[in-house]
Amino acid sequence: MEKRKVILDCDPGHDDAISIIIAASERSTLDIAGITTVAGNVEVGKNTVNALKICELLKLDVPVHQGAAGPMVKPSEIATEIHGSTGMDGPELPEPDKTKEEQHAVDFIIKTVRSSKEKVTLVPTGPLTNIALALIKAPDIKDNIEEIVLMGGGTFGNWTPAAEFNIYVDAEAAKVVYESGVPLAMFGLDVTHQVIADKEIQKRLSSPDNEIAVFVSELLEFFGRAYKDHFGIEGGPIHDACTTMYLLEPDLFDMKHVNVSIETKGEFTYGMTAVDLLETTGLEPNTMFARSVDQEKFWDLFEEILVTYNEDE
Amino acid sequence: MEKRKVILDCDPGHDDAISIIIAASERSTLDIAGITTVAGNVEVGKNTVNALKICELLKLDVPVHQGAAGPMVKPSEIATEIHGSTGMDGPELPEPDKTKEEQHAVDFIIKTVRSSKEKVTLVPTGPLTNIALALIKAPDIKDNIEEIVLMGGGTFGNWTPAAEFNIYVDAEAAKVVYESGVPLAMFGLDVTHQVIADKEIQKRLSSPDNEIAVFVSELLEFFGRAYKDHFGIEGGPIHDACTTMYLLEPDLFDMKHVNVSIETKGEFTYGMTAVDLLETTGLEPNTMFARSVDQEKFWDLFEEILVTYNEDE
Amino acid sequence: MEKRKVILDCDPGHDDAISIIIAASERSTLDIAGITTVAGNVEVGKNTVNALKICELLKLDVPVHQGAAGPMVKPSEIATEIHGSTGMDGPELPEPDKTKEEQHAVDFIIKTVRSSKEKVTLVPTGPLTNIALALIKAPDIKDNIEEIVLMGGGTFGNWTPAAEFNIYVDAEAAKVVYESGVPLAMFGLDVTHQVIADKEIQKRLSSPDNEIAVFVSELLEFFGRAYKDHFGIEGGPIHDACTTMYLLEPDLFDMKHVNVSIETKGEFTYGMTAVDLLETTGLEPNTMFARSVDQEKFWDLFEEILVTYNEDE
Amino acid sequence: MEKRKVILDCDPGHDDAISIIIAASERSTLDIAGITTVAGNVEVGKNTVNALKICELLKLDVPVHQGAAGPMVKPSEIATEIHGSTGMDGPELPEPDKTKEEQHAVDFIIKTVRSSKEKVTLVPTGPLTNIALALIKAPDIKDNIEEIVLMGGGTFGNWTPAAEFNIYVDAEAAKVVYESGVPLAMFGLDVTHQVIADKEIQKRLSSPDNEIAVFVSELLEFFGRAYKDHFGIEGGPIHDACTTMYLLEPDLFDMKHVNVSIETKGEFTYGMTAVDLLETTGLEPNTMFARSVDQEKFWDLFEEILVTYNEDE
Repeated sequence: MEKRKVILDCDPGHDDAISIIIAASERSTLDIAGITTVAGNVEVGKNTVNALKICELLKLDVPVHQGAAGPMVKPSEIATEIHGSTGMDGPELPEPDKTKEEQHAVDFIIKTVRSSKEKVTLVPTGPLTNIALALIKAPDIKDNIEEIVLMGGGTFGNWTPAAEFNIYVDAEAAKVVYESGVPLAMFGLDVTHQVIADKEIQKRLSSPDNEIAVFVSELLEFFGRAYKDHFGIEGGPIHDACTTMYLLEPDLFDMKHVNVSIETKGEFTYGMTAVDLLETTGLEPNTMFARSVDQEKFWDLFEEILVTYNEDE
Repeated sequence: MEKRKVILDCDPGHDDAISIIIAASERSTLDIAGITTVAGNVEVGKNTVNALKICELLKLDVPVHQGAAGPMVKPSEIATEIHGSTGMDGPELPEPDKTKEEQHAVDFIIKTVRSSKEKVTLVPTGPLTNIALALIKAPDIKDNIEEIVLMGGGTFGNWTPAAEFNIYVDAEAAKVVYESGVPLAMFGLDVTHQVIADKEIQKRLSSPDNEIAVFVSELLEFFGRAYKDHFGIEGGPIHDACTTMYLLEPDLFDMKHVNVSIETKGEFTYGMTAVDLLETTGLEPNTMFARSVDQEKFWDLFEEILVTYNEDE
Repeated sequence: MEKRKVILDCDPGHDDAISIIIAASERSTLDIAGITTVAGNVEVGKNTVNALKICELLKLDVPVHQGAAGPMVKPSEIATEIHGSTGMDGPELPEPDKTKEEQHAVDFIIKTVRSSKEKVTLVPTGPLTNIALALIKAPDIKDNIEEIVLMGGGTFGNWTPAAEFNIYVDAEAAKVVYESGVPLAMFGLDVTHQVIADKEIQKRLSSPDNEIAVFVSELLEFFGRAYKDHFGIEGGPIHDACTTMYLLEPDLFDMKHVNVSIETKGEFTYGMTAVDLLETTGLEPNTMFARSVDQEKFWDLFEEILVTYNEDE
Repeated sequence: MEKRKVILDCDPGHDDAISIIIAASERSTLDIAGITTVAGNVEVGKNTVNALKICELLKLDVPVHQGAAGPMVKPSEIATEIHGSTGMDGPELPEPDKTKEEQHAVDFIIKTVRSSKEKVTLVPTGPLTNIALALIKAPDIKDNIEEIVLMGGGTFGNWTPAAEFNIYVDAEAAKVVYESGVPLAMFGLDVTHQVIADKEIQKRLSSPDNEIAVFVSELLEFFGRAYKDHFGIEGGPIHDACTTMYLLEPDLFDMKHVNVSIETKGEFTYGMTAVDLLETTGLEPNTMFARSVDQEKFWDLFEEILVTYNEDE
């Protein structure tokens, strides 16, 4: 079976890390062309170091390209209250020997998509700054993007009453992506809040002899505490993992083709993704929106991925 | 027990009608000072006729004052697809002998609140135009308003992806009300979509010998069909009824004191009520927001109200 | 010759006072049905007292009705730095015996327009709150309004880089007025900054034996100092006077029929009047916009008005 | 005397062409590191061809790099009604042998600024897309930019009542540039409408034996006709020429250090530059704003430039 070529654009990040693990697992059918980083959960430099550490842990030999240091138009916003000062607090990974590439993430994305024989799938799990900049700089690449599979937004918010963090950080970038005409699959809070790694899940996934499982345990423990403290939610939703799980097993998710428009003007709603589930706007559908996930199968699959993790794949 | 003095400000409207029935029932502890009408579900003149018809059916001897013919700032919007061309399609009530008062609703509200010995509770179940105009014209009345108990808004929308109909119709009026400093109790779609009069409920409430119950049945039948056709929802949510039920039995509802801000600037989010349930904004709470209702007790009480309806109270 | 019936809606205010003097002069062809006051330069109560004082000084026997205490939607803003703490600092007028009427300004406007045989001209020289509220409460009066002749806006601002004070204070009210369909004549900063009462003008108008001229002198002296201190402009523009001068001598002004749209959403431009002088918008003209004034004739006429002022007209 | 290193970022464009001529003239003290093009007056590809043609005509041996094909966030807007279908209608220049460079304009700007020993001055005379993208992609270059000397904006508009074309086309890019902290010198419509090449100027500049003067004549003739037809103005304002004239002779211009904020949210004012000339906002100055120009000296200098034009400099 032919593997699907993807670029993972991320700001790891606890749930980004889990998303990468899924993508890199034995069970995966993805061909990871590279990892690109973006300012988001924390500063881009820290996110890059985290990406390099994860690659070393996973023995994942793909290039890591650093991207945008902040949003396109508005000032930066970070989320250390959720991810800690390193952006991936909890596990202690060694300083990586692996280094980032010289080339800017935006140019790596453009070059990879342009030169690829098959269409490339972009998987952004942070703010959409890199993706938007690539589309602005090289609109010709749109035709060779298979799909943008992203974590962001939802019918409700977490960073403000109306907006989810990734979209709020750079709503102008989100607007560019959602209006680009490229096929989108969107995993927002509606579905990501259905995959909360609560105590029971954490216990089930625990596997002291499996290095990757231990890493995941430590991620989930820190992340769960942060969610409890900040949002009063028991256990952290592993938001970003939905994107790569979808690529492995799309049938886990109930998707609806709808219009999603990005609010960039509002006084209290900047960064909202207006999801037209009731079809009241008359606007053309532009997004496959994930409404729900089969939670049991999701965790079964994730457990299987961890158990069978094979670094030598 | 002293009755609580209320003004019902409405655009009947199927669910407004039910709200009035609850307020006028034997079980009620409300002293209805008057009914005021506003443009909303349909044109204000039709809403006024419907209010008069309801009063005659209920032998409810209170003044009916007609109010604003449209929103403060933006153009009118009506919802005949939900309520029919009369605004209360379904039941056939005779043309009323009762007539509306000369005085404008806004002035009736001002005069009633100003001259009342006890504080007055306003119960708007349509767009907030009348209430806002009263507060603008007579800011002194704020101190003698006990509470504004309103149906509107929510963390999601029905008229647009972000906005509920009542708030969308006149978001500037809503902004005035929410920023007024008057205590607010808000029944938005989150809770009103928990009281859907589906087939089962309709059957349970059916009572062919009870004139009021028959009227309610006919309302619910039309309303349910409209919701099915327009929104794909089985059964109509009797939104407005939550307000008067709350006045009768506040314990039915789970309320949280939060900040709610009204979006009037957004491109895709005009009329959204940004409900700060996660307390991420740092803004002062200004609203008691209804998160949920005990559905079983709600319908039990509503059934009791219908069964015991006593026109001579 | 039949006199033109007007209502002067104002927030006196140095230039409002001069506008009233012009309207009440022997030379005038206006039938002043009443004066209505609005919050603007200072609090509405102070503006009302000033209106009453002016009436007594001018022996002008017309009713004074107090109106809105603040803008429709946004918080109040006043301009004591320009008009002093009384709103009309400078001249010392005695406390008035005359008292304001009971009826709210908005209701006076509605009743006067509704009951008038000839069409009525409204002359707002403060924020447009009263006029907007009247149009919202009684849209039927539109047909019996001859014209709204207003001071406000312009292609540049004075209170912000984009907005003039009157429109900035209540841009939502301005939007209602400009979108009402009623004929508008607009005197904005473009033209009012052409009638600056500098030292030379002040000297020319000085007439120590003429009580009204002395009053005007004292107004201009204070107002000129305030403009110098606050805006660095030598002499105060007698903005509001353009409205009543136009009613007396329309040929003084070069008017162009254009579209004017009111900005209520902007981040830095709230309250701007977007005047489509170059006809780039494709929007329908809704306003006669004053581009310039014959300054020589303006001051000649104003001098004549002062010289011949006859309190017994 | 050391030459000042500049990059000319443009969308030629009649007035862009004149700006380049000034920069490339014998009289100039500029070291042109390169020319970058951007979508604006017409599509970026046409602007690039025009830039190449101008270089050949002027025997100007600098690299030409093509940049953004459209605005960052909003859809494209072009101005063929002003510049003709080629973007530089009027003169007939031969197809250029010279070709554009491979490297994207944004990367050329970044590399040039980063690698320069002296600080570099950027001279954008089209939409600010390239400059903004460079600042977003490489925020580190800010410290090595001497100044951004731009044509755009003003206290009034030409493309809409509130906005000038260059800023209107990409207000988000303008916002990025104005908020960047880099020193700005801004030549908006206030000053550029003071350098209108009317018939008299055109006659004066006419010089049939001077190839460059003939080219300028043909530009001005077409441009003047377009301004007459579209705006009713006699003669075209050679907007962009102000930027390079300022670099040659800053004393021609009266500059004021003020805050300029970019409107990106407004309904009728998108792309307005709110210029705080009266210092009412309390915001920090970020821009040297050109209020006026010594017109006589401007045209004298321009004539001298044309007369002495030396292609071999």
